[in-house]
Amino acid sequence: MYKIAVDAMGGDDAPTTVVSGVESARDKLPNVEFVLFGKLDQVKPLIKDMTRISLVQADDAIAMADEPVKSVRTRKNSSLVMAANAVKHGEADALFSAGNTGALLAAGIFLVGRIKGISRPALMTLLPAMGGEHDAFVMMDVGANADNRANHLYEYGVLGSFYAHEILHYDQPRVGLLNNGGEEDKGDQMHKDAHQLLKAGHAKHLVNFVGNVEAANILQGPADVVVSDGFTGNATLKAIEGTAKTVMKTLKHSLSNGGIRAKMGAGLLLPTLKDIAHQWNPEQYGGAVVLGVKAPVVKAHGSASAEAISATMVQIESMLSSDLINKVETFVAEHKNDLAARIDSQE
Amino acid sequence: MYKIAVDAMGGDDAPTTVVSGVESARDKLPNVEFVLFGKLDQVKPLIKDMTRISLVQADDAIAMADEPVKSVRTRKNSSLVMAANAVKHGEADALFSAGNTGALLAAGIFLVGRIKGISRPALMTLLPAMGGEHDAFVMMDVGANADNRANHLYEYGVLGSFYAHEILHYDQPRVGLLNNGGEEDKGDQMHKDAHQLLKAGHAKHLVNFVGNVEAANILQGPADVVVSDGFTGNATLKAIEGTAKTVMKTLKHSLSNGGIRAKMGAGLLLPTLKDIAHQWNPEQYGGAVVLGVKAPVVKAHGSASAEAISATMVQIESMLSSDLINKVETFVAEHKNDLAARIDSQE
Repeated sequence: MYKIAVDAMGGDDAPTTVVSGVESARDKLPNVEFVLFGKLDQVKPLIKDMTRISLVQADDAIAMADEPVKSVRTRKNSSLVMAANAVKHGEADALFSAGNTGALLAAGIFLVGRIKGISRPALMTLLPAMGGEHDAFVMMDVGANADNRANHLYEYGVLGSFYAHEILHYDQPRVGLLNNGGEEDKGDQMHKDAHQLLKAGHAKHLVNFVGNVEAANILQGPADVVVSDGFTGNATLKAIEGTAKTVMKTLKHSLSNGGIRAKMGAGLLLPTLKDIAHQWNPEQYGGAVVLGVKAPVVKAHGSASAEAISATMVQIESMLSSDLINKVETFVAEHKNDLAARIDSQE
Repeated sequence: MYKIAVDAMGGDDAPTTVVSGVESARDKLPNVEFVLFGKLDQVKPLIKDMTRISLVQADDAIAMADEPVKSVRTRKNSSLVMAANAVKHGEADALFSAGNTGALLAAGIFLVGRIKGISRPALMTLLPAMGGEHDAFVMMDVGANADNRANHLYEYGVLGSFYAHEILHYDQPRVGLLNNGGEEDKGDQMHKDAHQLLKAGHAKHLVNFVGNVEAANILQGPADVVVSDGFTGNATLKAIEGTAKTVMKTLKHSLSNGGIRAKMGAGLLLPTLKDIAHQWNPEQYGGAVVLGVKAPVVKAHGSASAEAISATMVQIESMLSSDLINKVETFVAEHKNDLAARIDSQE
């Protein structure tokens, strides 16, 4: 039996949607218990069936706009910090929140704790791959770190490969470095160094590095794991999501303002447009994962639906049942000298 | 009369499309002469009417895949280098190419030369703004520099504002800093410093800085000038273009595979889809401009159509007739101490 610690107060309409997502996941996952941390006067009345659900009172809740690190350090009675501490003390196996992303990151890094040998845990997300061998790819870091060194990116290649292999069941996941050109001397010094580290890791069979990939075509699936510094990864992810949303909005706007001809066309196309919107809905791929910490720490979108939250719990269960964290810990311990490798131009 | 030096050998099917674009522009711009540099045995037979067109033999041509800086430094007889030297020596007023972007950048910086007081010329492009006050915004740097310092970004704010004001006729262009969050302490140290420099410039009425903007919503037009380091700007631009292309492709694919219902809908929607494709076609906004050098240096896409090349010539003419470069030079000379400002955390 696995136990997931749930921040019941995180998310746009928490605790309502969180509770409903938990109940739906509970019905799907007979081997999982859920511990909900939150204001019990709000949480308890929402629960229809207490099977495999337990509750812990948390007097405080960190809001979306609160300063992440400071909040996690000082607000011991918040639902998120209490849930993270439950994981830290071995009372739960994984941490879930749909609340403040920065605070969940801080809770993951400072409370759940880094895996020994991993210098910078990172935020990982899945994106659709159109026309590749697989229908999704792993991208990290999408915003945990604003300043990265080359060896962090090498670590991301290893962490992302484990996720792609163990959870998505990709054979020898292809790792690409997000850079501003295909040649190995492209980018700033940090990206040139990261390229060399990943290349050396490839020679040692530690990662299946396929070279640089560019933001222009990552959605075509040139790599199963796209490795990026957190600043560029964040901008790229947001540009992709923002553009997809804007194009779909433009389309809808044109359809509803395009006269009777366009309206008839739109009516006929509705099922197709819904399919496309679904394909572009990041929720279908589960939550964003803090990789590099000692337990699954997973974030659903603040506006995630109950179904999306339930899907995220399924994702967490597969991280637990595949023993992902232990496998990463064992690998990192065995290859710690390789992973700590520096190259000359790094300070 | 203005004179544009044209690299006739740059572009996917050069010189054919270049010549045809030049002839179309010549018919629209009675105050412009075109000097075409290239292999005259190929170029000359394509020209229908020599009015305001002159030709200069160039024995060599830099290809798309050639190494940019080295090519510009060593291939003196290439069409691009000869055209750039004509601008350098005052024999032409502006430089156009649809060829190797890196080589055009290098030719702009090393041959045409930096404006005194501008430390890093940058590549600027226009992107569509959906639902803002204006229908396009200026974005720079989209890839001239892989490593930026904070004061470069401040300079981009000034250069981009001049372009938006003089060429697009925007009143007090709003300058936004592309960053991974709205608050002024977001980003790595360089972006925090750039924010402070732009804020100080705003206080002195040198730029109309409106704060950070995020890749998720720049297409909604929160700023008229989006300032970015070249690495992130390049990734963001490519992610936007790649995503728009992928969504449209998915849509087309779904339409042609969606059964008779979808096909009928698609038929009815054709005019609307064409409108959207047009709105997303970067060509309609003209070429990418190397800003910060002593003359208009403008790049059309390698696959630009003759109409797009002609539109780019109109863009160059407006840069010349508005006296953009002189205005920038005067401004930079008057404010050189402000623009050279450093803040403590910069080395």
